[in-house]
Amino acid sequence: MNEKDIIDYVRTLTRACHSEVIDIGPGDDAAGVLLQDGGVAILSTDMLIEGVHFKPGAPPDKVGAKAIGRALSDLAAMASKPACSLAAVSLPSSSTDSYIKALYRGMQEEAERLGAPLAGGDTGSGTAELIITVTVVGTCGPRGTVRRSGARPGDSICVTGALGGALRGRHMTPEPRICEALELAENYDLHSMIDISDGLSTDLLHIAQESGVGVSINACAIPIHQDASAIAQHEGSGTEGAVLHALSDGEDYELLFTLPPMQAEKLASGGLSGVNVSIIGSIRKCRAKTITWPDATETTLKDTGWHHLKNK
Amino acid sequence: MNEKDIIDYVRTLTRACHSEVIDIGPGDDAAGVLLQDGGVAILSTDMLIEGVHFKPGAPPDKVGAKAIGRALSDLAAMASKPACSLAAVSLPSSSTDSYIKALYRGMQEEAERLGAPLAGGDTGSGTAELIITVTVVGTCGPRGTVRRSGARPGDSICVTGALGGALRGRHMTPEPRICEALELAENYDLHSMIDISDGLSTDLLHIAQESGVGVSINACAIPIHQDASAIAQHEGSGTEGAVLHALSDGEDYELLFTLPPMQAEKLASGGLSGVNVSIIGSIRKCRAKTITWPDATETTLKDTGWHHLKNK
Repeated sequence: MNEKDIIDYVRTLTRACHSEVIDIGPGDDAAGVLLQDGGVAILSTDMLIEGVHFKPGAPPDKVGAKAIGRALSDLAAMASKPACSLAAVSLPSSSTDSYIKALYRGMQEEAERLGAPLAGGDTGSGTAELIITVTVVGTCGPRGTVRRSGARPGDSICVTGALGGALRGRHMTPEPRICEALELAENYDLHSMIDISDGLSTDLLHIAQESGVGVSINACAIPIHQDASAIAQHEGSGTEGAVLHALSDGEDYELLFTLPPMQAEKLASGGLSGVNVSIIGSIRKCRAKTITWPDATETTLKDTGWHHLKNK
Repeated sequence: MNEKDIIDYVRTLTRACHSEVIDIGPGDDAAGVLLQDGGVAILSTDMLIEGVHFKPGAPPDKVGAKAIGRALSDLAAMASKPACSLAAVSLPSSSTDSYIKALYRGMQEEAERLGAPLAGGDTGSGTAELIITVTVVGTCGPRGTVRRSGARPGDSICVTGALGGALRGRHMTPEPRICEALELAENYDLHSMIDISDGLSTDLLHIAQESGVGVSINACAIPIHQDASAIAQHEGSGTEGAVLHALSDGEDYELLFTLPPMQAEKLASGGLSGVNVSIIGSIRKCRAKTITWPDATETTLKDTGWHHLKNK
């Protein structure tokens, strides 16, 4: 079973309606919890595994910073403002003191920079791999959180920045779009949002599935990162190859969101501070998921991104 | 460096005063976060590692339930009421679907039973060991949380239940003292509290260190679990052996707390629903940490419990 199967299975196990878990159960980027005192906490937990998310031998300060950045990208996806982080770290026996210090320094510096200082954690040792689980806690803005499930037919589909080829190196230094998400949520009627961690195709299909809608995107409109172009050039796979990397590679940590077309136009003409916004398609009422290629052919949008437990 | 060294190091890295992290930084059982809307969330994260916290081959539903119970014991230690849980699970490649389902069933059933349903998580695979990181979220009661650092000279030192020998089997089925902690916090002036996970000696010394006080306990007053007696009998180590197991074994998940002596007397005479409370000693103004043995000799209380990363 893959991660989606596990989430579906947990949903079947849940016996009661839990009033304290607000309407974001397992399956979104983060969970919302209504506290007894009326406050709402937004929570997400994210694992970084040696050999999966970073190469053995990667600089520990960079590994620590990546663990924090990745986790906070999930709060950005909900338009939640970060408050603090917790880190559970499982260390291989071979870890030296200087390695451990650099790892924690990388985590704490990044956590403070992004407004979510380490407030607690747990440590264990003796595992074969270094594994870091970061849990982040954020607050719910005045307009609430933005979920994956709110996309409406007619919405424009937008994405920040440029996509693809992150494995060339920038996957180790994710820059979660926290400020951008808060600016978007404050000034626009966001209907749905997700961060692109698994790849554009996979994450867009998450929105479609959770919202019960179809999507239609235009390959020419997808913003291609120069890393994706470089890989495609090296492969000799041309423009189509670069598009496939943008659709599939993941670890972009850009925001993918839907909103009314007029608001999308305003954003695409420079409405968001510091980052480009591209309109890549629209939400459809029918369940079809399609992509239109430069030669005007239309094909089904395949789920080509990263799948957790894909070999299960 | 051990876990305490890591916590001290993270404290030195923290550059600013973070108003959103209320006065429970790294080093207590859980962290408190003040949310923008005025709410307070109490958070703790806890790792369960195959080969460290459970034997390879242990039934997956029991492993899942233990991961949840252990984490919630940290909320009990703060007198926080559970609201929800998040689970990050790193699965070995060999995990079958039925194994994964039993693991999640164990987690969700225990989480719902204890009032903290799973609200989110993360999954990864391909690690050598099964590793589960559970983060629990609770609310802050009307009288606030109870910390490790509040013990005052003259306080009686109390413990619920009986201690020692949990590794005979009951360590796999922790019963966090959630209701008992809430009842205690509501009706008594608790000055400090911790749950006994690392062993009575280690956890009592945590209270002493964080509170800047000494302790004096009486070996004869320590409630010995029949598991500890059975092990001591098997070892031929007698009463002293049983006391040493109660001081050192850990994974008892009982509450260790301090409060004014008259209140402690009331509790010890049956004031708490469903569980015995024993007065085992008192808090001293001087920094000495001592234990008095049945033959009236007094020795220094040694830190003989479990130490995370003790081989570091």
